[in-house]
Amino acid sequence: MNRMENLDEDNLPRTQKQQGPFPMEVLKHVEEPTNTITNDIQRIDMRNTAYGLAGRGEYGPVVQKGVQKSLPGKYPLSAAQKDVIDHIALIENNPVAANKAPIPQNPEILTYHIKSVGYFLKADVMGTCKVPASAYYSHDKQGTPIDTRYENAVIIVMRKELKAIRASTGHDWMGDPISFQSYQHLGMAAETIANYIRRLGWDASAQYGPSFVNRYTVLLPPLLLAAGIGEISRAGIILNPYLGLAFKAAVVLTDMPLVPDQPIDFGLQSFCQNCKICAENCPSKAISMGDKVMYNGYETWKLNTQRCASFNFTNKKGTMCNACVKSCPWSNPSTWPHDLVRGLVMKVPFTRKFAIKAARLLAMNKPIPEEKWWFDMEYADDTIESREKNSGQ
Amino acid sequence: MNRMENLDEDNLPRTQKQQGPFPMEVLKHVEEPTNTITNDIQRIDMRNTAYGLAGRGEYGPVVQKGVQKSLPGKYPLSAAQKDVIDHIALIENNPVAANKAPIPQNPEILTYHIKSVGYFLKADVMGTCKVPASAYYSHDKQGTPIDTRYENAVIIVMRKELKAIRASTGHDWMGDPISFQSYQHLGMAAETIANYIRRLGWDASAQYGPSFVNRYTVLLPPLLLAAGIGEISRAGIILNPYLGLAFKAAVVLTDMPLVPDQPIDFGLQSFCQNCKICAENCPSKAISMGDKVMYNGYETWKLNTQRCASFNFTNKKGTMCNACVKSCPWSNPSTWPHDLVRGLVMKVPFTRKFAIKAARLLAMNKPIPEEKWWFDMEYADDTIESREKNSGQ
Repeated sequence: MNRMENLDEDNLPRTQKQQGPFPMEVLKHVEEPTNTITNDIQRIDMRNTAYGLAGRGEYGPVVQKGVQKSLPGKYPLSAAQKDVIDHIALIENNPVAANKAPIPQNPEILTYHIKSVGYFLKADVMGTCKVPASAYYSHDKQGTPIDTRYENAVIIVMRKELKAIRASTGHDWMGDPISFQSYQHLGMAAETIANYIRRLGWDASAQYGPSFVNRYTVLLPPLLLAAGIGEISRAGIILNPYLGLAFKAAVVLTDMPLVPDQPIDFGLQSFCQNCKICAENCPSKAISMGDKVMYNGYETWKLNTQRCASFNFTNKKGTMCNACVKSCPWSNPSTWPHDLVRGLVMKVPFTRKFAIKAARLLAMNKPIPEEKWWFDMEYADDTIESREKNSGQ
Repeated sequence: MNRMENLDEDNLPRTQKQQGPFPMEVLKHVEEPTNTITNDIQRIDMRNTAYGLAGRGEYGPVVQKGVQKSLPGKYPLSAAQKDVIDHIALIENNPVAANKAPIPQNPEILTYHIKSVGYFLKADVMGTCKVPASAYYSHDKQGTPIDTRYENAVIIVMRKELKAIRASTGHDWMGDPISFQSYQHLGMAAETIANYIRRLGWDASAQYGPSFVNRYTVLLPPLLLAAGIGEISRAGIILNPYLGLAFKAAVVLTDMPLVPDQPIDFGLQSFCQNCKICAENCPSKAISMGDKVMYNGYETWKLNTQRCASFNFTNKKGTMCNACVKSCPWSNPSTWPHDLVRGLVMKVPFTRKFAIKAARLLAMNKPIPEEKWWFDMEYADDTIESREKNSGQ
């Protein structure tokens, strides 16, 4: 007998019990995200993202050349990972089963079940939300209008590999491999979940990155906010209270009836207002040192995407930059000093000033060279050249 | 500056420092595996494995029909996973780089590096060994002779998902999904590592299961023994001291020069001689209650593979069986009671009798129905039928 069948509607599992490795369920859930969101949001054209603009030469010829060079994989490990992700993204969708599977059709039970599948596939956090029409891109890279096809979203979150983040400078050769490690696992999990949902009789679409694959028809940040994965941070991206900025996400859009999660409030808005360590550590000075502004209907610290993308695509001593991820105090692992500080920020507002100072001191913004296990090297056409500092090159 | 470049040959990292999540390095390493292995080993013909024999009808028509039915995926979740694994296995090998990458060619450094890549890709244990010629299959499924092509092996081990094992009866619908979850991740990691090694200038071949993919040219158990992943267990398969039987492995065969690991001795031979909990819990009585025997040059408790395979392929209330994995006390997670018992077995021989009794009491051989999150159902041709006990079917 399945525990799901014993549920009555007043006694639901979502709010009862921690499903995954992190206690998302105990966080303070709220009706609306902690940043103001208006109804006046323009859908984004995929051709006008930072990647699109950089690739079209809008950030100048040096950046454009960098895009062309970096996309095929500058570094042997990330090039290997890219081959695997590219291959995974070639999988063909199985058909949607003609009949619904003989399982309970209760959205609460289905939500619990699909989240369980995600955790089983090594997700660190799972979430659900309704997809606001404004979260859909307006046009794809080819300029074809994108349909606001699905109502529900399943969010899959995976932590970035912390050992490599800790060892790295944040903007060396390990940037791409760290991101691609998440994308490999997210792509596989998203494709498996979407395939499974289609077998159960509902349509589903697996959407995941990185940019060279880009299976997205939606922007992730609005969905991460709605599903209570995190709050908006000073770095202009979503921050989770247990993973900090050290995660990547994928989404499965679906017709399966699901109960949406609620946004969360863990005190980040006042934390980020005061901390600024990510902005101080940003090598391209792309992160705002100032206050939040309104941008396309969202209250946010506005990232200078041109500076961020330009640094990434012209970085001569590494691949993509992770400096904000690395320096953010919330990215730290769950050990007692970090958990203590996290707890103070979340639950004891009057200690927040002290907690922010402590968090900054505990941040892993410095590299740890003795834990570095990779080699500095770079593709120069078809051969690999060393980029080790002491290699004389 | 890379720590690897500071090494002198007398001060090697492998024996110094725990690389992965489990302290494999502190185990007692020995020259030879703890079970006798003679030089008189016949290479196995892939057509004569239990799967091959069952599929050819050598175990009778009912079992043969079961093979045909079970291979395409009896259960919607494992069928979805199978689609993804099948797709991953279609990836084409990238070419071996014409020139070696500008990295240290020291085998100790390369071994440390490749293990680091494995851990970065979520491996739980990594190992290396020389490949004995006898570990190669003699012929593939089509009867083509198999070449003893590569000298070195990189072993990738991933833990099976313990929550599902704990909730499961051990021989219900979750058997295949649990194994396939490991195979999905192993396949992706093995393909990534092999691709990366080829980019560095050495040939490599990613080999992983399950049976419907079967990219193996080698048998895994001899390699797992040689690489010190575990000792032979009463269940007739290799047991790791931190993962028990709850793991799957894959291998990357390669020409890259590597330093082999040594076999380990953690006291399992006398433990399994006395414990027998796996044999007691085996629903097909396939596991020996007796002593070890010599079989094709290996001293082992001899699994009755016909009984094991026949049960698996004719299981009407589930997919493949995991009962030995589930009941083995060593499969338990690393929490203090289990670690205490493990420590006694390994380090305090005179307490072993007590420790075996304690281990048996702590074993997770009973299912936990209230933690079950999946639905009992089965493909009947193209439709899915419920197999819930209380569904009236």
